[in-house]
Amino acid sequence: MLTSIEESPLFPIANPKSIAFFGASNNIASMGSNLLASVLALGYGGAIYPVHPKETEVQGLKAYGSVSDLPVVPDLAVFVIPTALAVPTLDECGRKGIKSAIIVTAGFKEVGKEGAAREMELLEVANRYGIRFLGPNCIGVINTHHKLNTTFMEHEGSPGFIGMASQSGSFITQMFSYLDRLGLNFSTGFSVGNEATIDIVDCLEYLGACPNTKVITLYIEGIRRGRAFMEKARQIVRKKPIVAYYAAGSETGKKAGKSHTGAMAGPDPIYQAMFRQCGIISASSVTELFDMAWLLGTFSPPSEDGIVIQTHSGGPGTEAADACGRLGLTLPSLSAETRKGLGELVPHTASMNNPVDITYSKDPMHYFNEIPAVLLKDPGCRCFLIYFHMPFQVISRAFRKMGWTEDMIATRGRELLMGQSNIVAGLSERYKKPVVGYTYRGMDDPFIKNAVKMGMPVFPGPQRAARAIKALFEYGHIRTKQLGERAA
Amino acid sequence: MLTSIEESPLFPIANPKSIAFFGASNNIASMGSNLLASVLALGYGGAIYPVHPKETEVQGLKAYGSVSDLPVVPDLAVFVIPTALAVPTLDECGRKGIKSAIIVTAGFKEVGKEGAAREMELLEVANRYGIRFLGPNCIGVINTHHKLNTTFMEHEGSPGFIGMASQSGSFITQMFSYLDRLGLNFSTGFSVGNEATIDIVDCLEYLGACPNTKVITLYIEGIRRGRAFMEKARQIVRKKPIVAYYAAGSETGKKAGKSHTGAMAGPDPIYQAMFRQCGIISASSVTELFDMAWLLGTFSPPSEDGIVIQTHSGGPGTEAADACGRLGLTLPSLSAETRKGLGELVPHTASMNNPVDITYSKDPMHYFNEIPAVLLKDPGCRCFLIYFHMPFQVISRAFRKMGWTEDMIATRGRELLMGQSNIVAGLSERYKKPVVGYTYRGMDDPFIKNAVKMGMPVFPGPQRAARAIKALFEYGHIRTKQLGERAA
Repeated sequence: MLTSIEESPLFPIANPKSIAFFGASNNIASMGSNLLASVLALGYGGAIYPVHPKETEVQGLKAYGSVSDLPVVPDLAVFVIPTALAVPTLDECGRKGIKSAIIVTAGFKEVGKEGAAREMELLEVANRYGIRFLGPNCIGVINTHHKLNTTFMEHEGSPGFIGMASQSGSFITQMFSYLDRLGLNFSTGFSVGNEATIDIVDCLEYLGACPNTKVITLYIEGIRRGRAFMEKARQIVRKKPIVAYYAAGSETGKKAGKSHTGAMAGPDPIYQAMFRQCGIISASSVTELFDMAWLLGTFSPPSEDGIVIQTHSGGPGTEAADACGRLGLTLPSLSAETRKGLGELVPHTASMNNPVDITYSKDPMHYFNEIPAVLLKDPGCRCFLIYFHMPFQVISRAFRKMGWTEDMIATRGRELLMGQSNIVAGLSERYKKPVVGYTYRGMDDPFIKNAVKMGMPVFPGPQRAARAIKALFEYGHIRTKQLGERAA
Repeated sequence: MLTSIEESPLFPIANPKSIAFFGASNNIASMGSNLLASVLALGYGGAIYPVHPKETEVQGLKAYGSVSDLPVVPDLAVFVIPTALAVPTLDECGRKGIKSAIIVTAGFKEVGKEGAAREMELLEVANRYGIRFLGPNCIGVINTHHKLNTTFMEHEGSPGFIGMASQSGSFITQMFSYLDRLGLNFSTGFSVGNEATIDIVDCLEYLGACPNTKVITLYIEGIRRGRAFMEKARQIVRKKPIVAYYAAGSETGKKAGKSHTGAMAGPDPIYQAMFRQCGIISASSVTELFDMAWLLGTFSPPSEDGIVIQTHSGGPGTEAADACGRLGLTLPSLSAETRKGLGELVPHTASMNNPVDITYSKDPMHYFNEIPAVLLKDPGCRCFLIYFHMPFQVISRAFRKMGWTEDMIATRGRELLMGQSNIVAGLSERYKKPVVGYTYRGMDDPFIKNAVKMGMPVFPGPQRAARAIKALFEYGHIRTKQLGERAA
């Protein structure tokens, strides 16, 4: 266990004060140029020294003909160079005194025997100089808090709380916009590539110690240091949740993973048992991985189960109940006090069972505030799940008939809608319980978009919501169990 | 089996030439007024006769004090009136000679004993006059091809091919915008309510005979006429696929369904066996129901399995392979000819296994046209699944460095993107095989939005894509089996 994050070999890789950059030029079509452009776009605050055999300036930065010419010894070297140049360049870096590198360059172990031999050479050079590097055949690192992004896509979001260690670079860089749309972002994400000197276990350890990381996500095609992985994970889940998606559990996934990273995959039951034993929550897709991370990073885990569902429609209520039931989640009966409070707010056609189906609103505002307030106070309610179907079309229709102009509808109607969205998004904060939404409106619907922006998890359909809520409960149980073990 | 759709009691309900409308007024806050507004908004071409005790004009239409005053005998009566008025109003309609009705009015069997007695009275009146009605406690009907929409939400899409019979009105009316975003729409959708004189089996029969319906979707909380249901279904699946979501299979779903429609639900295994026996494809959520309907209504079912996956990224390829593998779907090896053709188009880093991971593009257009063309011609490829991650950000970055103005990037760059999107959306048509996409870009991403608008199914993540493709294969097997049975 790290006593300080600075002990990790990943610290200078994720938090360098200066970088030597190999492989960027002024030809924007090249991979290296794109990666440097990503670094520049995020506003990295340290010094960058492009090394280029011909150019004297690269993307507006002073370029150097050789690493030996650099005025300082940079914390980190980034390689996006042809395969054949990797070994000699690493040797030059070693001679300069550079101790950390990200080797994006591919063509090593993942391409077969010859590549594996080349990777051995790389390792020998690294060992000779005491260099630790991420990769080869990786996409590098995103540390939103240090404004460092060496990956292919520009990062446009704000600093986030999701840590990730991934055996696929795509699930780091290609998820930037995905997460940003959910108001989420990475704290630090590592693409581990071939894991020559730094592996996913090292990343897990780093993220466990990382103060900006509230929840750790893992994309796994195969783990080599199983024992160390479990040991670290067990320690970390005491402090923060870990969610993992193991993609090589099926025969086809295993085969594809082998083509991809050359990872030696094991049978799914072994991985699932390993996850269970060390308190890692298992996801069955990348979507689920981030759904779970969303809830786990947003809410404290309740110590007991129990979901209360609110809808204004029978079908969506039944579907949500079914989604919960299929996962073994319980929907407690409402207390007499809750039913009494509810009775004053809903029409006689309403169902006061759980799911609560109000059928129609006596006052449209009640759906977003007064009714949830009653339900959230129910002692059995450990998590509140609410259905959204914003009939802005219907509101507009009513306003139109009242003689409002289209401008008035657009502005005042929108104001009304946003007011409701803000109120519902604030429920969790006010009542100190997890509040989750589901909807069949698009995620770009203004009401939904605003609630999500305000930090409320909303899912398209109840199944994803229920699965993520289950993960939250699971983490509650893991914590309770661990606290019990420590006390004993 | 209907010899003609006009024999169905639902024909005048879904295709009325004229309507008597009870319960609409000029007070737009009322339910009835909203429903009439929906009818008017879609541009229903027949005559509408609002019946209102006081008003002489309702929403611009001449209103009548009583149904007996109407100048004609309308095909259909729609009731959105207080519970107590339903029986006497139906009696008046009967005396006038009206034979069909939609009773939206609630407060019958679903509210308990007293309501059940009231529903019996309604039935007696209906029987006396030979009236068949949809409901009570339903939301009515959408028939996009007849421009009839009696439901709460206005229908803004074009006529579609999905038929639906639903024991939840919400899953008709609240799905309008959901489906429209996918370029889908209902052909005809029925909300069956309490099923007093017309049940979900009648709806199934109607949709089986409906020429505008390519695929039938069912939302089920409980079926009473099991034998008739199976008989009809078995006949229909010879002509068109049926997909069903049974929401009351879990204990919580069953309880919620009982509160909702009072349906007597059976154990899930019994429903699943029933579906299997009559060739109905089972969905496990509303999302899945429409995902499956999307593919089943868009593509002819292949007679054999086999998915070929194309990506430019290892992780998304492995995840898609895993998603397919978990569902038991096969990824055939590519033929020598395919690998040869592919070899000329992809860099040496590419994986020519299935999933194909091109790693990077030698020519960006190849990803959307030349490479799919090679893969779609592979004899093992029965369905083609392609990953999308449109780096418009990267394209823009390149154009910017080339000195393009932001305007040029916005227009010409967008043109380029739309060109690619059009080409990929046309692949299925050109190669006569199902082509499906998956992505982590939002569904409102311009590339994705355009492809979907052009009729190409694209899913957020590979799991939903794989599940829908499996349904397509399932229907292929059902058809093959049935053809075999008929030949024998």
